[in-house]
Amino acid sequence: MNYVTGVVMQFTTQGADEVVLKARGKFISRCVDVAEVSAKRFLENTVEVNDIVINSEEFKNDEGRDIRVSTIEIGIKKK
Amino acid sequence: MNYVTGVVMQFTTQGADEVVLKARGKFISRCVDVAEVSAKRFLENTVEVNDIVINSEEFKNDEGRDIRVSTIEIGIKKK
Repeated sequence: MNYVTGVVMQFTTQGADEVVLKARGKFISRCVDVAEVSAKRFLENTVEVNDIVINSEEFKNDEGRDIRVSTIEIGIKKK
Repeated sequence: MNYVTGVVMQFTTQGADEVVLKARGKFISRCVDVAEVSAKRFLENTVEVNDIVINSEEFKNDEGRDIRVSTIEIGIKKK
């Protein structure tokens, strides 16, 4: 819920026009929850999901193996 | 990995032009993984992520409480 508060405050007390949420791996589903709750419950009719991009990051772990992790960026914009 | 195989087979042996992946709740992150691995590792240069939509489903649980769950739909299309 703290993430939702953060998004709502960006739009209300900070006057932001757009907020971009980013997450990797298993936190992607929580990122979608935060976007949905912010845009549909707390800021209904004020903001909307603008753009969603998914991607992958690749790196080597401590054992030198190639690891791939998914990422998401969700842009929320003032209507 | 079975989901990735399913997507790849839709495009290869079934001749599909578009496949839409859908998931709810905590499985959203796996859905993004499946889309990324399918489009970037197995079908690189052949398909691309076309459109992503997030939404919420609301229903009452067994105790009559309102429950909200996030959903995602990821469209993958032949280039």
